[in-house]
Amino acid sequence: MVRVKQLLSKTRPEDIAHVFPALRERERRQVFDLIEDSSYQAEVLAEIDSGLIREILDPLNLEKVVEVLHEVPADDVADILGELSEERVSSILGLMRDQESLEVEDLMGYDPESAGGIMSPDFFALPSETTVSESIVALQERHDTIEMAFYVYVVNEHGQLTGVVSLRQLVTTPPTTKLSDIAEYDAISVQTSADQEHVAQLVARYNFLALPVVDETNKLLGIVTVDDIIDVLYEEATEDILKLAGAGTELPSTATIWEHFRMRYPWLVASCLGGFIAAMIMDPFLSHLSAFLMLFVPVVMGMAGNVGIQSSTIVVRGLATGNVEMGKVGSVVRREIGLGLLLGVGYGVIIGIGVALYGYLSGTGQQQYSIAFYGVSVGLSLTVAMIMAATLGALIPLGFNRAGIDPAVATGPFVTSALDVLGILAYFMIALLLAQVF
Amino acid sequence: MVRVKQLLSKTRPEDIAHVFPALRERERRQVFDLIEDSSYQAEVLAEIDSGLIREILDPLNLEKVVEVLHEVPADDVADILGELSEERVSSILGLMRDQESLEVEDLMGYDPESAGGIMSPDFFALPSETTVSESIVALQERHDTIEMAFYVYVVNEHGQLTGVVSLRQLVTTPPTTKLSDIAEYDAISVQTSADQEHVAQLVARYNFLALPVVDETNKLLGIVTVDDIIDVLYEEATEDILKLAGAGTELPSTATIWEHFRMRYPWLVASCLGGFIAAMIMDPFLSHLSAFLMLFVPVVMGMAGNVGIQSSTIVVRGLATGNVEMGKVGSVVRREIGLGLLLGVGYGVIIGIGVALYGYLSGTGQQQYSIAFYGVSVGLSLTVAMIMAATLGALIPLGFNRAGIDPAVATGPFVTSALDVLGILAYFMIALLLAQVF
Repeated sequence: MVRVKQLLSKTRPEDIAHVFPALRERERRQVFDLIEDSSYQAEVLAEIDSGLIREILDPLNLEKVVEVLHEVPADDVADILGELSEERVSSILGLMRDQESLEVEDLMGYDPESAGGIMSPDFFALPSETTVSESIVALQERHDTIEMAFYVYVVNEHGQLTGVVSLRQLVTTPPTTKLSDIAEYDAISVQTSADQEHVAQLVARYNFLALPVVDETNKLLGIVTVDDIIDVLYEEATEDILKLAGAGTELPSTATIWEHFRMRYPWLVASCLGGFIAAMIMDPFLSHLSAFLMLFVPVVMGMAGNVGIQSSTIVVRGLATGNVEMGKVGSVVRREIGLGLLLGVGYGVIIGIGVALYGYLSGTGQQQYSIAFYGVSVGLSLTVAMIMAATLGALIPLGFNRAGIDPAVATGPFVTSALDVLGILAYFMIALLLAQVF
Repeated sequence: MVRVKQLLSKTRPEDIAHVFPALRERERRQVFDLIEDSSYQAEVLAEIDSGLIREILDPLNLEKVVEVLHEVPADDVADILGELSEERVSSILGLMRDQESLEVEDLMGYDPESAGGIMSPDFFALPSETTVSESIVALQERHDTIEMAFYVYVVNEHGQLTGVVSLRQLVTTPPTTKLSDIAEYDAISVQTSADQEHVAQLVARYNFLALPVVDETNKLLGIVTVDDIIDVLYEEATEDILKLAGAGTELPSTATIWEHFRMRYPWLVASCLGGFIAAMIMDPFLSHLSAFLMLFVPVVMGMAGNVGIQSSTIVVRGLATGNVEMGKVGSVVRREIGLGLLLGVGYGVIIGIGVALYGYLSGTGQQQYSIAFYGVSVGLSLTVAMIMAATLGALIPLGFNRAGIDPAVATGPFVTSALDVLGILAYFMIALLLAQVF
């Protein structure tokens, strides 16, 4: 035990948090209890998978939880409490110091995916008359309570943000200079309600280390630091990728197979319904058209589905990175329609020739319809299906985005299934029309 | 013109770079020429879409290019030169100051997606005997040549990294303290060859603002700063998302529709071939089995494809974020097989009953085979196809990863097409076997 304690005290808290998911539940609790210093326990807790929080904190008594949380920055406390049961949260808040619990309660009031939900209330703000040397003294006094002090925010008597000075400017400016002389006055800030994806885009564009968060009156309430933005980027990308694949949201590494099952089962409903609708569409055509045409249902479905996925994915990712802005929607849709046409003609001709050749070699062309009919029919309907697929693939996520729905959530399985059905409908309609011509 | 110049001088360079893609080629060049200060032009250039670099720099004479690049940090110069033609690069390097061009040439030698390829050679390193006040003086002297000085790296006489001190520690420590007394000695560093995705994972795990990059002898060569990591995260996530969707890589916003066409056309080949193979597999079964069974090909294909995409996407993303490490492969594959079984049985039963009901209502059950045959046949083959899909969906990207191939690149269209073909094969094999039993 003494050895384990020594080992733990020499390991970075981030590394302990990193191996936690690989341990058994009993081992995790033992390791956490063996960490002697509660500020060290706090660091591990702040870095741990959110799915493990409850398992570790629930068996501890309230006083111990409050002692550990006292060492955790307020924004992380709010996230951690979000994982616990309501009664336990109110008991914990009741035991915390008044100031501390008020701060945490305020933070818990924001949407966890907004600027307010990810901001830290520990920033460093001074009036504009403060000199550089006074600022450095103030920083030295408060450096242990401020997580990441890269900037001094300049505020007026109402606490409203007026400017910003970087720590580097402080270090490289004569001590008697006033903050008002070196502050940058067009400081970029966001309101608490701003979406975390938008905050990430701003931090990425301007290479900020922290972004101030203000209320409607421009009062400074907190800062979002770059390390939180990195977590946001991982989280948002994973969310988009899994939603596009119809795999729900990310589960903690300790999730059971039943939890995975419950997460993934509903996403397949769209595909299941789409398949049945496709069957019902094909059914009446079965007696009118050659069975040979049935062979090429998979290629028409597959190609239309894939073009649709390409288009919707490009649009969803473009919206996430800010490269497709709502102003440019028209040109994106025009481009996708054009691409659907080009790709559709490009593959329609090849596949049409392939089908005709296959019909000729298998002797099907001599039986019911001419091989020209088969070739033109499959080729043309493939082209039409691909144009529809590219157009809808772009329009559906743009429509969802405009309606305020996450475009990734409904794009994947939704678009694929819709395109399957439409592709099959186009396929048989065109074949039936052409059967009368040939 | 004077007005435009005034406006430009008041606009942040990042904002000018941000609107550049929305301008016409002629406008972009005019705006760039109207920026008077070459250090300001440099800032715009460093933030611009890489696809636009050539268009802006190619018409300028060499002396002007060298003048602007002189103001750009060396790591960005290396990236910018990577966009230009070889002859022009060697002329530009020839005109640069020797020291500057050597540095840039060194950087251009690294894989652009490695730690060496994204590092900046402008770091701040001092011997361990330096005092805090001497360090601050040194920092004040060099602050304009160092991009982001958050850390003082402590090096020995061979330039080998021995420790690290944060800028914040410098500001909050008594001036006569030696760096050796406050340095952290187990500084985490990466070698130049480390993959940028791995560097991003380290920065995310430890909340670093910069990570030192060393050679094999631990000599400090550069630093990767957190703002570059944010770019890496956007880039890697976009790359994975587009590859999973079979949409190639991201094109600059100025790409023509033909460039989009050329990027997307090849990815559909897998789907096209898969469809033809599916047709050839179905063909011989057509004469032996009821045409009614053909109606349910789309549902079997769709469900198997979607389960496969779920599994492969979860594995690809897990590999990218480090949550699926190569040591845990066995448990991931076991989980996916189990999920394929659960999901397959879950949907197989429902769809089997649905098919039987549909056969009963449409009167097909009285014609050729019993409705029990149709129900069991479709339901069972769906289950088998879904188990295969989940298993292969997990195994294919893991196999690619082990073979050193980007798992995202071949997963999307590759897995879908393979699963389409296997799903159809399973479907008809099972129907044929069951037709002999019923």
